[in-house]
Amino acid sequence: MNKLWQKNIPVHEAVERFTTASDRQFDPLLAPFDILGSLAHIRMLAAVGLLAETEQKQLATALREIYQRIAEKGFALEPGVEDVHSQIELWLTQKLGDIGKKIHSGRSRNDQVLVDIKLFLRAEIESLVQALHRFFQKLMQLSEQHRNDLMPGYTHLQLAMPSSFGLWFGAYAESLVDDMRILRAAFDVVNKNPLGSAAGYGSSFPLNRKMTTTLLGFDDLHYNVVYAQMSRGKTEKIVAQALSNIAATLGRMAMDVCLYMNPHFNFIRLPDEFTTGSSIMPHKKNPDVFELIRARCNQLQALPYEITLMTTNLPSGYHRDLQLIKEHLFPAFQLLKDCIQMSDLMFSHLEVRKNILDDPQYKYLFSVEEVNRRVLQGIPFRDAYRQVAKEIEEGRFQYSGELHHTHEGSIGNLCLDDINRMMETQVNSFPFEKIHRALDQLLAEA
Amino acid sequence: MNKLWQKNIPVHEAVERFTTASDRQFDPLLAPFDILGSLAHIRMLAAVGLLAETEQKQLATALREIYQRIAEKGFALEPGVEDVHSQIELWLTQKLGDIGKKIHSGRSRNDQVLVDIKLFLRAEIESLVQALHRFFQKLMQLSEQHRNDLMPGYTHLQLAMPSSFGLWFGAYAESLVDDMRILRAAFDVVNKNPLGSAAGYGSSFPLNRKMTTTLLGFDDLHYNVVYAQMSRGKTEKIVAQALSNIAATLGRMAMDVCLYMNPHFNFIRLPDEFTTGSSIMPHKKNPDVFELIRARCNQLQALPYEITLMTTNLPSGYHRDLQLIKEHLFPAFQLLKDCIQMSDLMFSHLEVRKNILDDPQYKYLFSVEEVNRRVLQGIPFRDAYRQVAKEIEEGRFQYSGELHHTHEGSIGNLCLDDINRMMETQVNSFPFEKIHRALDQLLAEA
Amino acid sequence: MNKLWQKNIPVHEAVERFTTASDRQFDPLLAPFDILGSLAHIRMLAAVGLLAETEQKQLATALREIYQRIAEKGFALEPGVEDVHSQIELWLTQKLGDIGKKIHSGRSRNDQVLVDIKLFLRAEIESLVQALHRFFQKLMQLSEQHRNDLMPGYTHLQLAMPSSFGLWFGAYAESLVDDMRILRAAFDVVNKNPLGSAAGYGSSFPLNRKMTTTLLGFDDLHYNVVYAQMSRGKTEKIVAQALSNIAATLGRMAMDVCLYMNPHFNFIRLPDEFTTGSSIMPHKKNPDVFELIRARCNQLQALPYEITLMTTNLPSGYHRDLQLIKEHLFPAFQLLKDCIQMSDLMFSHLEVRKNILDDPQYKYLFSVEEVNRRVLQGIPFRDAYRQVAKEIEEGRFQYSGELHHTHEGSIGNLCLDDINRMMETQVNSFPFEKIHRALDQLLAEA
Amino acid sequence: MNKLWQKNIPVHEAVERFTTASDRQFDPLLAPFDILGSLAHIRMLAAVGLLAETEQKQLATALREIYQRIAEKGFALEPGVEDVHSQIELWLTQKLGDIGKKIHSGRSRNDQVLVDIKLFLRAEIESLVQALHRFFQKLMQLSEQHRNDLMPGYTHLQLAMPSSFGLWFGAYAESLVDDMRILRAAFDVVNKNPLGSAAGYGSSFPLNRKMTTTLLGFDDLHYNVVYAQMSRGKTEKIVAQALSNIAATLGRMAMDVCLYMNPHFNFIRLPDEFTTGSSIMPHKKNPDVFELIRARCNQLQALPYEITLMTTNLPSGYHRDLQLIKEHLFPAFQLLKDCIQMSDLMFSHLEVRKNILDDPQYKYLFSVEEVNRRVLQGIPFRDAYRQVAKEIEEGRFQYSGELHHTHEGSIGNLCLDDINRMMETQVNSFPFEKIHRALDQLLAEA
Repeated sequence: MNKLWQKNIPVHEAVERFTTASDRQFDPLLAPFDILGSLAHIRMLAAVGLLAETEQKQLATALREIYQRIAEKGFALEPGVEDVHSQIELWLTQKLGDIGKKIHSGRSRNDQVLVDIKLFLRAEIESLVQALHRFFQKLMQLSEQHRNDLMPGYTHLQLAMPSSFGLWFGAYAESLVDDMRILRAAFDVVNKNPLGSAAGYGSSFPLNRKMTTTLLGFDDLHYNVVYAQMSRGKTEKIVAQALSNIAATLGRMAMDVCLYMNPHFNFIRLPDEFTTGSSIMPHKKNPDVFELIRARCNQLQALPYEITLMTTNLPSGYHRDLQLIKEHLFPAFQLLKDCIQMSDLMFSHLEVRKNILDDPQYKYLFSVEEVNRRVLQGIPFRDAYRQVAKEIEEGRFQYSGELHHTHEGSIGNLCLDDINRMMETQVNSFPFEKIHRALDQLLAEA
Repeated sequence: MNKLWQKNIPVHEAVERFTTASDRQFDPLLAPFDILGSLAHIRMLAAVGLLAETEQKQLATALREIYQRIAEKGFALEPGVEDVHSQIELWLTQKLGDIGKKIHSGRSRNDQVLVDIKLFLRAEIESLVQALHRFFQKLMQLSEQHRNDLMPGYTHLQLAMPSSFGLWFGAYAESLVDDMRILRAAFDVVNKNPLGSAAGYGSSFPLNRKMTTTLLGFDDLHYNVVYAQMSRGKTEKIVAQALSNIAATLGRMAMDVCLYMNPHFNFIRLPDEFTTGSSIMPHKKNPDVFELIRARCNQLQALPYEITLMTTNLPSGYHRDLQLIKEHLFPAFQLLKDCIQMSDLMFSHLEVRKNILDDPQYKYLFSVEEVNRRVLQGIPFRDAYRQVAKEIEEGRFQYSGELHHTHEGSIGNLCLDDINRMMETQVNSFPFEKIHRALDQLLAEA
Repeated sequence: MNKLWQKNIPVHEAVERFTTASDRQFDPLLAPFDILGSLAHIRMLAAVGLLAETEQKQLATALREIYQRIAEKGFALEPGVEDVHSQIELWLTQKLGDIGKKIHSGRSRNDQVLVDIKLFLRAEIESLVQALHRFFQKLMQLSEQHRNDLMPGYTHLQLAMPSSFGLWFGAYAESLVDDMRILRAAFDVVNKNPLGSAAGYGSSFPLNRKMTTTLLGFDDLHYNVVYAQMSRGKTEKIVAQALSNIAATLGRMAMDVCLYMNPHFNFIRLPDEFTTGSSIMPHKKNPDVFELIRARCNQLQALPYEITLMTTNLPSGYHRDLQLIKEHLFPAFQLLKDCIQMSDLMFSHLEVRKNILDDPQYKYLFSVEEVNRRVLQGIPFRDAYRQVAKEIEEGRFQYSGELHHTHEGSIGNLCLDDINRMMETQVNSFPFEKIHRALDQLLAEA
Repeated sequence: MNKLWQKNIPVHEAVERFTTASDRQFDPLLAPFDILGSLAHIRMLAAVGLLAETEQKQLATALREIYQRIAEKGFALEPGVEDVHSQIELWLTQKLGDIGKKIHSGRSRNDQVLVDIKLFLRAEIESLVQALHRFFQKLMQLSEQHRNDLMPGYTHLQLAMPSSFGLWFGAYAESLVDDMRILRAAFDVVNKNPLGSAAGYGSSFPLNRKMTTTLLGFDDLHYNVVYAQMSRGKTEKIVAQALSNIAATLGRMAMDVCLYMNPHFNFIRLPDEFTTGSSIMPHKKNPDVFELIRARCNQLQALPYEITLMTTNLPSGYHRDLQLIKEHLFPAFQLLKDCIQMSDLMFSHLEVRKNILDDPQYKYLFSVEEVNRRVLQGIPFRDAYRQVAKEIEEGRFQYSGELHHTHEGSIGNLCLDDINRMMETQVNSFPFEKIHRALDQLLAEA
């Protein structure tokens, strides 16, 4: 196999297979980002005199061609090539000869893959933010649309007080605001430049790390080179925690849907084309999509713990262990976006039952209303509570079905504008435009 | 037992014990915050006309007295009292009669404990930020002090390249910057007001939730009342994730210390009064403190998983399950602060060995320096690499021990000012002063 | 502080507190087992000539007195004593002078605490087996009692086919059989003697480890002394996994109960004295006990993960980290037994609704019966399925409410004898009697 | 798509893709076991009169042909076919017409996939047991071979007492004995027949479940049909726990190897063909294989927690969530076997350094020997300990390098026969032969 560190003694074939199998599967995802990193790196090398300007231009042109080819046709390692970094360097030397070899000056595969992962995570988070934002808007719109569709509210799974679908949809919308808040912070940890940390101990070359920071649109540097290396695994875990929060929101929502589609609740239904059947029970219409969203989201919540286990108690400095982290993390973004998009699709077709609370089985939901009514007439709360409790015990509880909830965030005052404002603040604070400008410039012909 | 929801039929004694044991242990931590919540609540009740101004003043005076008493003498539930909320209401009614009962108007124990937990977490995070900030400064000072004390850098636990204690201390300092970034976001999730959400479905009283938000120094509201309730468990998990990141940083640092104190490494030592001995091996000097920090930090990293398990797949709406979350979360703050403070103490006495790299066993650390030197003379990197590799294979590798690392974050350029700037930005962005002003005002006599 | 490894330089006070706090809390649980271990150890020391027989008798008498005193009055470390081992040795030397010091010959605190933990776990597992066995019998009796009480069976939380409370109770009984199977294997890992492994590398004394194995009623040895030490943490994790399986069974059962007590299901109810109320909703009767069982069981399921995190990536050999494992593991037994006993108590009072399936809302449960009826008349299954599905679609599905389930494990043939046989096989295979005989003999006067 | 539950309304294309993608990837692994399950099922159907004997023979012949074809050419779902069960039924009906449809009588996909998973897990565990047993024997042989190669033993990562490579290899061998013990119990939970439980509520057909139990070589039944369904997820978790224990053993071993290959320890080395190099450091020889074993084993230790998260708090009865469990569990067996086989390969080439303890840096390892020597001369242990500690403090400690460890499991008495006996007892207790006989008979022509 063609390796950057080839020595005289060939590596045992089983060792080769065992150590590279996982990379061969996941490296294609990193290929375009590896080229972006290299474009910034060579521009910097030229600026500090480690590469002639003509060499830089030749390399940049060749890298952009490879980038274009990957964008169009995808990326696959050729047989016998160890990883994405070796493959791209190989293509460069095939085209440019010895100049191709110069691309690796002043860096190590360690900081190369670090920067690749950060660029990859940055792009994946951007795509996730968009999907989340769209789904947030769907939830907000459903909250508005169903503001007057009352439903029971439960505590302890017992009937508690009146709620509404306006509240229910809006609750998950607002939950995404807090999830976005954490994702925003995780993005800041991602959006720092590790390039130039080499193998985790820096380089004797006069690198200009602030220059690559600007070229790649990073917000700042991981300054300390030992910390830059230490950010591997840590960054992935922090991102996984942010994903797990989103998954927790979607998972609970899916659990609610499964419960509300249960025939005893029967609050919502899905058209037949969105349910599945049974191989032996001809009457079944199952909410499989939401069950799978729930399961997938629970699976995603295990991800931070997997990464924690893989990194705990490792001393500082690079270990090959870090390489396997990508296996479950990289696909997690697509899996989570699938859950978001399926939720969006299903909610576009969800039918909410009207006038649920007209059924007298729900009368006790109004007991607090009745207590409060008496309090407003001057009876101390505890006394009013005991009066109503007694009337319920003795079967003579009377109620009016009217609701007068007016305070912030209640049935009658959903505060959707406030919730939307909070979400927009988060979404708009992501520096995606600055990043796009930087990367566009890097990819543009000189 | 004296309960807010007392009915005619007494609860079975075993049920009573099983359902209240955990609260009796942890409620004392919430008592002062419960009073702050009540002070804001009654001020608001008076403002919207649900409480006479004179009643509000009587209640406020009594609450402040209880607050003072707790501050001086601590808090314990009296026998037969169910929880902190009942205990405080009991004291109020003992003193003020029926007026005491009015304090519960317009809220439920659900939003009462929600606001208590948020105020508690807010205070604990503030205390944690201070401890972290101090330890960060210690690490920064050690980084500066040991900037010229070289040590080997490892990858794969193999000798790699020269590093320094300046880099090593600085790396953990910078790691705390990113941990603080996540803690900052977690704080924002904490610092939203759930009060007024009652049992999770709001109230028919004309509450003014923005008023209590201001009075308690919260940054904003959990608007949607269903979401306010849903934030229980979620908030705790997000905080636990933030703690687990700090624990991961300290745990890895402790692992490094244990390794560096190993006699084969022998990079650092602790005075005898900071090590422990063996009951059978008279020569032993063990780094128990760092082993316990490592273990404690690993234990703390399990905390988010525990909370995840306790909340996953619960439908929306309050469940009693949420009550047990505090058991391991509440003590976690003190345990983590203990780890920080012990690290601080030990690092104040840590002795770093000088001139480690003078030993010829470390000569290959300089092989990259030698490769780079040749590259700077015009030899392509890959060729220089192969030359030096050959010289090493053949036992004729020569090197100079000089280092010329000048780029950002390298041995010769630690960028401590940049790292400090990033930390100060985070620390200063916490709105602690605003919170103190609000709470001081709430506690001041009218 | 009085320590077995006291040197000239006193340990820093903060170090002392940090390193011993956890032991001071949990050591009392180990005290009686420490004495048992010492009784076996000195008997063996005398047998191999390392202790005079008269010394052995004096020590044994003193140890039995301490054992008796602890049994009657409990155990607490005296101020300034580091751990249980030091405390007991201190009492011995106070009484017997220099002879007391000889008890530590040929062992280390490492194998001493190892054997203490194993004896403790063995006793706790025995107590757990008894509690589980009793609860199994309660479930079996309820299964028999409710064999004709039909209820709906759900898949996907949708109505599926007829089930019964006989099946439901019996399912959890049979689940405990498999949990017991794993607990049985975990017990075998516990029930091996580590004594004599000293600090994990054995001893130059001519110890007779098979003798202490017999004296303490162990089934076999952890032979290899390095492995004996390595079993620390591993044994605890395996036991925690076994506990987590039991917790998973109870947790799911509690979830079912909470759902079945939901008013829309309304399959079971609890008398008022076994439910709790709400502070604002006078009509509430909440299944708090089962919610807390569910939460506690989920918490317990996090335990193996915590232990895994605390031990992963530690090289072989003792580390002080292992000491903290007991913090959440030791209380876990009592917490789990509380859950079992509360489940038992609640199930003694649970009321099952009769004739649930008479309600026509459940008619589609019988669709498979109808399909099968036609198959038995010769119609291929897929065709019968399509016929019935069509009749349901068109609203003309007819059914008889009769059930003819006769195969093993079905409504009409619960196979309780088979399930009971499997459980008895497991329970009877624990060698508790052999252990009691050994320990009784050890504690009996010579 | 061709489905067993096809209705009039086609399922939305996105729903179809989302709900079947995971199955299409993992079903091929189940295909041969699905056929075995069907062979037993139809034999039983014929025996109870639900299938004519001639039909049974036709179906059996066709199923055996498919089995043979899969064994030779592998299995892939045809486009538009939902799952393995539908695919096999489709092939049967293509060949036999209406008779093919009859195979589904008296079962559901739920018990069909349950039995498939159990047969799959049974086969995977058998293969794992063989790999583990071989590696155990390699470790035992290395222990014997290196019984006289001394090495330092560490506690707290500090030099403690003399150890040996005989002890070190033997320790991991004995660790596998306990891992095998737990795997054996997990196998018993796997090896119970769920067939006939249908959708989790049994069937009105007069099935003979004991007959399929015998035909498929199961040890016993999951009797209760509700529990048979509940065993899904639970069985997988118990197996994952057993795998995680093996992974913990291998992971710690890999950590030791990485440490012992560190140049400061330098106890073992691997030939160059079994190490990898660095892209920038020409002197590096990295133990990547053991780092990847460590990482993979840590990843595998996260598996039980993932399954726990996916199943916790789900009420009883089938949920589609269970379907995703196979994603990480099914590949885990191959990943773990890869780790075992790579460890085996590497250990076949590992070179152990001789005479390590001759170096005077290790002299304090012998301090306990010296203490014990004095004790054997009659000095009380505590006094001897203090004498030697004083001599060490004052730099006048003298020692002989001789060791006299003779007790069970010590350097001089490895007890390999005892360890081997324990392992053989476990391995021989698996009923693999009985299973092979049953399956061979099932596959043999009538």
